[in-house]
Amino acid sequence: MKATQYEGNKTFTVIEKEIEQPAKGEVRIKVAYVGVCGTDVHIYHGMMDKRVTMPETIGHEMSGIVDAVGEGVSDYAIGDKVVVRPLDDRLVKPSDKGFNHICEELKFIGIDSPGAMQEYWNVPAFTLHKLKETTDLKLAALIEPLSVATHDVRMSGLVAGETAVVLGGGPIGLLVAMVAKEVGANVIISEVNEARIEKATSLGFDAVNPINVDLVAYVKEKTEGRLADVVFEVAGVQPALDVMTEVAGIRGRILMVAIHGQKKEVDLFKFFWKELKLIGARVYEKEDYEKSIDLITANELPFEEMITDVQPLTNIQQVFESIDQNPDGMKVLMDCSL
Amino acid sequence: MKATQYEGNKTFTVIEKEIEQPAKGEVRIKVAYVGVCGTDVHIYHGMMDKRVTMPETIGHEMSGIVDAVGEGVSDYAIGDKVVVRPLDDRLVKPSDKGFNHICEELKFIGIDSPGAMQEYWNVPAFTLHKLKETTDLKLAALIEPLSVATHDVRMSGLVAGETAVVLGGGPIGLLVAMVAKEVGANVIISEVNEARIEKATSLGFDAVNPINVDLVAYVKEKTEGRLADVVFEVAGVQPALDVMTEVAGIRGRILMVAIHGQKKEVDLFKFFWKELKLIGARVYEKEDYEKSIDLITANELPFEEMITDVQPLTNIQQVFESIDQNPDGMKVLMDCSL
Repeated sequence: MKATQYEGNKTFTVIEKEIEQPAKGEVRIKVAYVGVCGTDVHIYHGMMDKRVTMPETIGHEMSGIVDAVGEGVSDYAIGDKVVVRPLDDRLVKPSDKGFNHICEELKFIGIDSPGAMQEYWNVPAFTLHKLKETTDLKLAALIEPLSVATHDVRMSGLVAGETAVVLGGGPIGLLVAMVAKEVGANVIISEVNEARIEKATSLGFDAVNPINVDLVAYVKEKTEGRLADVVFEVAGVQPALDVMTEVAGIRGRILMVAIHGQKKEVDLFKFFWKELKLIGARVYEKEDYEKSIDLITANELPFEEMITDVQPLTNIQQVFESIDQNPDGMKVLMDCSL
Repeated sequence: MKATQYEGNKTFTVIEKEIEQPAKGEVRIKVAYVGVCGTDVHIYHGMMDKRVTMPETIGHEMSGIVDAVGEGVSDYAIGDKVVVRPLDDRLVKPSDKGFNHICEELKFIGIDSPGAMQEYWNVPAFTLHKLKETTDLKLAALIEPLSVATHDVRMSGLVAGETAVVLGGGPIGLLVAMVAKEVGANVIISEVNEARIEKATSLGFDAVNPINVDLVAYVKEKTEGRLADVVFEVAGVQPALDVMTEVAGIRGRILMVAIHGQKKEVDLFKFFWKELKLIGARVYEKEDYEKSIDLITANELPFEEMITDVQPLTNIQQVFESIDQNPDGMKVLMDCSL
């Protein structure tokens, strides 16, 4: 079988190795497609070399078909279409209060242990979600990032008729916008990259560039002064943090989706004055995956437009190099059979 | 009648004026006691001179007895013991979404219009809450600040058995701690002023000085690793902001009670990582006042220990000067009959 390995120093190799039998409680998946996540690009850039044991097969946005089942696995059979929820919570403790998906000793499969960028992949059966027979495997590789979005929207408590402002129109921002729209909210996307604004607009979204448009005035006008009921901070930059407390109306909820590596300046007075809520949201829970699987299977949202390229797995080096040179792209998938 | 006036430049005067008839929809109160709030001290320091029209009678923490009722007022009668919820929300708009207590055009009585530091005070009847015949009028002057605390605790969703860490052991911090304890939570107070630590300890609280004790390690040990379920940030200083995200456990809620005039550094990564919530809380709603009235009337919490001095209203200048020189004090009341 073919497997890819991150070797450090912006380098991937493609190797041939033996197909392994699944251990007790494991399932072997023939991987169909694997998407490249922002975190994978981070790893490629060497930003996570302390966490990744090299050489390592990475990747966690995937779809596939069950190819073999290990001892004790009864819920899955050869031929089942599946996706993996890449959270290994086996070290959960009582102090995690039952929030297993963010437990202190969580291992993220594809970062802390081998991932999906290979032809066959052995994973614990408890990480699997079964797809429908009709689910498209290419779209199914979006279920993991879509589950980030369904989790964010669920955590926000967004309901029909509310106005959601999404700060940042990259892949996660667009998925959040789609889920928010599906809930029945009025969605406004704020994005500085013109190609991404065009993409969002072509998908039917109200997308504005806050460099050219006064975002707060724009949202105020669209909402008869209410401003945003929910703000999704997906941009990860200081101007987004500055505007998030301005564009949120009374008792507005701000979802912290972006990862801010350093401490940042926040207008805490606005939290007090308008009784705002800041809600941190990380990865997903079982129900978020189930919601995403339903959305992908129904295929009524423009998911296909999210996939801007599909490449053979063996082109992995070139794929990562070209993502660096094309910040306008959305989601690149790799076909693991090629 | 006697009335006091803030004249700017750290100066109060005491004047004699006519007792006025209550206008339509108003009630005249014979003020019993008025407490000095941190905001009043702010006004005295000239920090709010742009907002206060001088000369102005300030004050909003009070208790009193209905002395006359204006036309159209049927819910109150002469002799009723009352407190005022000093929120004038008559300019509420649909964009305030029904959150009248923090509506955009809110007028705070005692800052934006005449307050309670006088012998008789005319206020709109809709601001009143009736006390019981048995309610102590001295303790009743604590109902307004106590309602800040009941509001904070209600907004936090704190429940029995949870651990609450209160950052800052001043008057509001102590009231928050009392209400949290009454809810059934385990309460830990963090305070740097040794006199305030002693006060909190004497009231039966677990109070630690974070300069001498590693607060995070302390709370971790007390909670078997869970850390705080709720953190009340009442201190208003950067070290409190630094520790609030450390001392909160998974899905912890952080209540932003303090007023931060400038933007401050916040560890947003921790919000993401532990799915923390930051909840802004300002003033109070009707039900918070009702809860506070019940607590004060029952008098089962050490409210009397909160009142560290009672002075005649005519001593107002001296009262504000001595508060400046005695940062260890808790609540000073003025007797408006003297």
